[in-house]
Amino acid sequence: MDANGVTGGLWWDADGLHLIDQTVLPSRYVVLHPTTVEAVAHAIRTLQVRGAPAIGMAAAFGLAIALREGDPKTVEAQEAMLKDAARILSATRPTAVNLAWAIRRVMAAWRNMGDASPALLARRVEAEALAIWREDRELCRRIGQHGKELLASARKVVTHCNAGSLATAGWGTATAPLYALRSEGWAFRVFVDETRPLLQGARLTAWELSRAGIPVTLMTDGSAGVVLRREAIDAVIVGADRITARGDVANKIGTYGLAVLAQAHRIPFFVAAPFSTFDLELWNGEDIPLEQRAASEVTHMAGVRLAPEGIDVLNLAFDVTPADYISGIITDRGILKPPLADAIQKTMGAGAKEL
Amino acid sequence: MDANGVTGGLWWDADGLHLIDQTVLPSRYVVLHPTTVEAVAHAIRTLQVRGAPAIGMAAAFGLAIALREGDPKTVEAQEAMLKDAARILSATRPTAVNLAWAIRRVMAAWRNMGDASPALLARRVEAEALAIWREDRELCRRIGQHGKELLASARKVVTHCNAGSLATAGWGTATAPLYALRSEGWAFRVFVDETRPLLQGARLTAWELSRAGIPVTLMTDGSAGVVLRREAIDAVIVGADRITARGDVANKIGTYGLAVLAQAHRIPFFVAAPFSTFDLELWNGEDIPLEQRAASEVTHMAGVRLAPEGIDVLNLAFDVTPADYISGIITDRGILKPPLADAIQKTMGAGAKEL
Repeated sequence: MDANGVTGGLWWDADGLHLIDQTVLPSRYVVLHPTTVEAVAHAIRTLQVRGAPAIGMAAAFGLAIALREGDPKTVEAQEAMLKDAARILSATRPTAVNLAWAIRRVMAAWRNMGDASPALLARRVEAEALAIWREDRELCRRIGQHGKELLASARKVVTHCNAGSLATAGWGTATAPLYALRSEGWAFRVFVDETRPLLQGARLTAWELSRAGIPVTLMTDGSAGVVLRREAIDAVIVGADRITARGDVANKIGTYGLAVLAQAHRIPFFVAAPFSTFDLELWNGEDIPLEQRAASEVTHMAGVRLAPEGIDVLNLAFDVTPADYISGIITDRGILKPPLADAIQKTMGAGAKEL
Repeated sequence: MDANGVTGGLWWDADGLHLIDQTVLPSRYVVLHPTTVEAVAHAIRTLQVRGAPAIGMAAAFGLAIALREGDPKTVEAQEAMLKDAARILSATRPTAVNLAWAIRRVMAAWRNMGDASPALLARRVEAEALAIWREDRELCRRIGQHGKELLASARKVVTHCNAGSLATAGWGTATAPLYALRSEGWAFRVFVDETRPLLQGARLTAWELSRAGIPVTLMTDGSAGVVLRREAIDAVIVGADRITARGDVANKIGTYGLAVLAQAHRIPFFVAAPFSTFDLELWNGEDIPLEQRAASEVTHMAGVRLAPEGIDVLNLAFDVTPADYISGIITDRGILKPPLADAIQKTMGAGAKEL
């Protein structure tokens, strides 16, 4: 917990993994303790843990849990168990690239240990997951430091969904510059889109920002237009679930519309994300698989049916914002400015410095 | 009820006023029967009856109800009673101009009767309210006829909120061209914004369109961007609560953002409204008073708190779309094309034909 009272969405200790249950906030604060791979997968699938960095870390810890749970006595059994867990965890959510990245990284650490004993290998898996978590805290801090320069004189900022501390091990991504500014006593207000259907803005972002003492104005997603037109907004800042080599950004549904509105009102539109969100294998954002979620997320709320039966429902969890709409990407490695393809190649491409 | 099974949102018979309770649809179909001015005002205030034309008609019938309820024996007592009712009804909602228009029209009819008996005057009030209702049905039909030419080859249309039959005495406004096309067997799909916070799209428009056999895809308000980008949408069509002499349109919050998105994707953006929605006294849409509603509409749903305490909430019921974003206004008197100020002056200004 930092001076603002900000904790991340998950952490690891001798007992294993702990997750803040993001589905019951803000009415209840519940910390979950999944002890099986299936429980971790369930937490990811049901959005008890959500946000691109957090689901990557949860999956990494999930691999450590697989070995704790199964306690395999041979390297071969261990490998089979890890692969099985990786398959289950990878399949939970298709859009965020951090999930696949974190699993790959832990698997590579295991593989690169060579002829170690199963016990040592299991410790290596746990250590690598924990390293990702520690780095994530540091990545958030760096995003905060870089981003606060961009937002240094901002009085009013708009954000969408929750790219907040709950989605990471630390300050969050889109929220990191806000927490950094807040640490220094800068006064500003954040207009938070409620972010239907699951209301991560209302339930999570409004909760964590106001808990840290930052003034929040909550609004429906449809209010962004009039707010960008009338409120002298200095910037829009959002997170990302995947960023292509060209700089196209997959993020929570509604991000694209907000980006078009920001451009129409000549308001800078920033994306904040760590290096692990970049997928340099993809060029065109239209090639990012977009998760379709259950119709009931739209048609029901708190168990009450809000729409008639017998209609179709579109419930894409994400949309893609083309690079043209993005004024800058705030990363742990600095701020990437248009032309984004060049900046991404230089900063994230082969040969770019690793953390 | 027409061949599609479409009824309006309210009607009048020997017993008085009947309103479909729009707050409990689609889970329950309840017809209310307010018999006092306060009950009518309550129905308008709480959105049991909503939609610019419907609240105008409800207020007009409310004046007739005032005289039924009070049964004043002198013309002076009648006048006092009508003025009192007019004051209460006018104060219910500030944005839609139809409310003030309908009240003015009924009051003028009463005033123009000259030296008639109180009983005759009371019948005149009732007859004028009923005339507005009958005309509204006809206005909807005409909007449908004019609008169906514009949408003649459309396969996919987007709409926002409910400018539907429930908001009128007949086919609705934005929905009128859709019902007209449906009557002729044309096949198309309507993408309906759920329209937070009160979900008139999900609860009302999806309900009435699907009841009339029109295929509906319900989506969150934040989905409009990706749908306009990817779905080959032919047109966006919405209603209006007030239209200024310049052609600026006040309508449900979210309309402005949708209009900006439509323009960015070069998709025609149409507004449908009868002549009574035009307020030629106003030029600039920024001068339209915009109703701020209770924060709880955003922070709670079905009695469940969805946002933390201690935050600000912006809950504007309406926004204003400048004329520049509007491809055409479909009225009972024909289609108004840009430049809208000229077309409005010609069609709706002093000397333009009355219905």
